[in-house]
Amino acid sequence: KLIELMEPLHAADIADLLEQVNAFDRRRLILLYGAEFDGDILSELDEGIRDEVIHVLRPEVLAEAVRELESDDVVDLIEDLDEESQEAILSSLEDADRVAVEKSLSYPEFSAGRLMQREVVMGPEHWTVGEAIDFMREAEGLPEDFYHMVLIDPKLHPVGHVTLGKILGAPRKQPLVELLEPGFRTFRVDESETDVAYAFNQYHMIAAPVVDEDDRVVGVITIDDAMNVLDEEHEEDIMRLAGVGEGSLADRVFDTVKQRLPWLAVNLVTAIMASLVIAQFEATISQFVALAVLMPIVASMGGNAGTQALTVAVRAIATRDLTGANVWRVIRREVLVGLTNGIVFAVIMGIVGIAWFGSPALGAVIGAAMVINLVIAGLAGIGVPVVLERIGVDPALASGAFVTTVTDVVGFFAFLGLAGVVLL
Amino acid sequence: KLIELMEPLHAADIADLLEQVNAFDRRRLILLYGAEFDGDILSELDEGIRDEVIHVLRPEVLAEAVRELESDDVVDLIEDLDEESQEAILSSLEDADRVAVEKSLSYPEFSAGRLMQREVVMGPEHWTVGEAIDFMREAEGLPEDFYHMVLIDPKLHPVGHVTLGKILGAPRKQPLVELLEPGFRTFRVDESETDVAYAFNQYHMIAAPVVDEDDRVVGVITIDDAMNVLDEEHEEDIMRLAGVGEGSLADRVFDTVKQRLPWLAVNLVTAIMASLVIAQFEATISQFVALAVLMPIVASMGGNAGTQALTVAVRAIATRDLTGANVWRVIRREVLVGLTNGIVFAVIMGIVGIAWFGSPALGAVIGAAMVINLVIAGLAGIGVPVVLERIGVDPALASGAFVTTVTDVVGFFAFLGLAGVVLL
Ligand SMILES: [Mg+2]
Ligand SMILES: [Mg+2]
Ligand SMILES: [Mg+2]
Ligand SMILES: [Mg+2]
Ligand SMILES: [Mg+2]
Ligand SMILES: [Mg+2]
Ligand SMILES: [Mg+2]
Ligand SMILES: [Mg+2]
Ligand SMILES: [Mg+2]
Ligand SMILES: [Mg+2]
Ligand SMILES: [Mg+2]
Ligand SMILES: [Mg+2]
Ligand SMILES: [Mg+2]
Repeated sequence: KLIELMEPLHAADIADLLEQVNAFDRRRLILLYGAEFDGDILSELDEGIRDEVIHVLRPEVLAEAVRELESDDVVDLIEDLDEESQEAILSSLEDADRVAVEKSLSYPEFSAGRLMQREVVMGPEHWTVGEAIDFMREAEGLPEDFYHMVLIDPKLHPVGHVTLGKILGAPRKQPLVELLEPGFRTFRVDESETDVAYAFNQYHMIAAPVVDEDDRVVGVITIDDAMNVLDEEHEEDIMRLAGVGEGSLADRVFDTVKQRLPWLAVNLVTAIMASLVIAQFEATISQFVALAVLMPIVASMGGNAGTQALTVAVRAIATRDLTGANVWRVIRREVLVGLTNGIVFAVIMGIVGIAWFGSPALGAVIGAAMVINLVIAGLAGIGVPVVLERIGVDPALASGAFVTTVTDVVGFFAFLGLAGVVLL
Repeated sequence: KLIELMEPLHAADIADLLEQVNAFDRRRLILLYGAEFDGDILSELDEGIRDEVIHVLRPEVLAEAVRELESDDVVDLIEDLDEESQEAILSSLEDADRVAVEKSLSYPEFSAGRLMQREVVMGPEHWTVGEAIDFMREAEGLPEDFYHMVLIDPKLHPVGHVTLGKILGAPRKQPLVELLEPGFRTFRVDESETDVAYAFNQYHMIAAPVVDEDDRVVGVITIDDAMNVLDEEHEEDIMRLAGVGEGSLADRVFDTVKQRLPWLAVNLVTAIMASLVIAQFEATISQFVALAVLMPIVASMGGNAGTQALTVAVRAIATRDLTGANVWRVIRREVLVGLTNGIVFAVIMGIVGIAWFGSPALGAVIGAAMVINLVIAGLAGIGVPVVLERIGVDPALASGAFVTTVTDVVGFFAFLGLAGVVLL
């Protein structure tokens, strides 16, 4: 009955289902589903629970499931598993496939070599449309999904590629070289998957060959895998900006605590630094308790404005829209935006300060502190990620803590310091 | 010389170049580039400066540029322009194209109908591979990029589709119906583009037909356009989480201020609410100024923990991994994570409180406030986006302000309130 129910589901949906139930139900589902368990389901499963699922599967079911996958999917499946699971999977592959997978695993992690599939449809550059069609009709085991025929010279160097649509639309006699796609490009095995995903997105590519050090074609990357990388990088950016490590909803409490605690610890250190600033002004505060009431407002507005500028900058660096060509103009813009917003909120808070505490001097102090902090927020929000990126640190990773530390410290210092001078 | 320099650049790179220079240089570049200006460049340009660029182009260059685009790209280009620019573009199209574009524009914004291209390669369901090939050889103006032949019945209803790779690999006599792809699906013209992008990503689709109310094929959506939607939704989520409206690096200061000011205003209101809480405890603070020094730490830790839970929840809702099936388990997990982290940081802050101010009672108060605030942070971080999503509000849009208001208010109230009871 279960098998009947799950039959119409796509492997990705079955994987989602397994992720959403608890570990106990998951185990029962897998045992019940038994021999129907598909390699594609494993591919789609969240990395966090793949190991768990693989240990539940009977060895012969696992072997059967893995054998039907394409080489790139096996590589993606295997690379994050523990050694025991890796062995189990490698040993269930046929010899030729195992060698192919091991070769791919020899390329660095997050490289084009890991992302590509080794099954490429290629033909010599002198072929005509007719020869290409005859070749494909006779070929056994064409890849499941392919979109071009790659033309190569006698040394296996890529010359270009022709879309299947063009081949189908042309007369048999036409030479394939006359149908080459414009804007053809290849990736090197050691190029980073980030660059691959960027190029697919920027140039609307659908597939591109991968070449080795000697410029010989060794594989092809298709858009579905590039899209997956892009999606993972988005996830990474949004999670890192929030100070959340890698993880998934299926993780247990202990694992989640382990992911989040370090970031909270960093935040604690920065919060204590801000407190040390406040401590310098204890005498001032004890004379005007209104300062303690108002000071979080200045810090909070600075933190928010800084986060705005920061997020725009991190996103623009990821899309490569923030470059050396426009960085100074963008910095100038952020400072001016900070100044403008600062003036607007200085006026508002000045009025609030006067209305609430009846003190024009207090209103002036909070207004001035607001302008200072929002300008600094704009500057730090853009400057911190730009500098981090220059020195090779992921700007999404550490910027948030830096920027809010700056705005907290500057906010408290400006507000309490000015208050000390003006009000005492 | 400029034309020579720009010749090898992809339209997307030229668009990026135009976005990165200032408005004055942009104008000069466009005028110099003159008749070489391509429709693809317009398509790639950021929406924020399309209007500006269109007004700079001479009408005959614009007309020429737009005529070479496919219908979906014209629709995407035109939909966000001001009326004057829309008119300029529509009137430069040939009659048939204009009718097609106007038809697409009649579908709701952000629908599959807006996303699809109207050029579809179709054939009757009884065709063989040979008939399909002959048809494509004779057809004029096959689309630039297509990946399937869609099979239809006599009423134009879609029966399924066959990949071009399968057509090329099969003998001429084989009926196409024997080669249909498994997992075939269509979209309705009025389905939302979010659902389209989700399905392409989840099921690794490459193209899918779009049908009208009567289930007749009226267009096709290809992966490059779906990938674009996915990318835009990521951008929207990350920007909304940071309280940044739509916008781009090319915007002027005034526009950027207009985008960010409303969010800062919301933050100001919530910060003032937190201040009102503090104001209730002025008497307590004036007796123990140490409270003013320590209170931002409790609020800041709560805000950070809340943002962590919130970001995980917003992302999981976007990927549809957080559903009715696991929401209670995820809420329980967040509360337990908050409790665990709360206890860890309660111990640390308790020690800090004692070491710094020499008061075990103060250490106990800040520790207890920390536990309370981190539990509430976990609860609010997951609860707020889930509730917003249920009532049909984008959880990325408003959650941040809600959650940090909760953690600020609870943090100050718990810390100062407990301090008032314990220390006085
Ligand atoms: Mg999943
Ligand atoms: Mg994932
Ligand atoms: Mg695949
Ligand atoms: Mg991987
Ligand atoms: Mg770009
Ligand atoms: Mg693949
Ligand atoms: Mg990144
Ligand atoms: Mg761009
Ligand atoms: Mg296109
Ligand atoms: Mg659009
Ligand atoms: Mg999914
Ligand atoms: Mg298109
Ligand atoms: Mg959204």
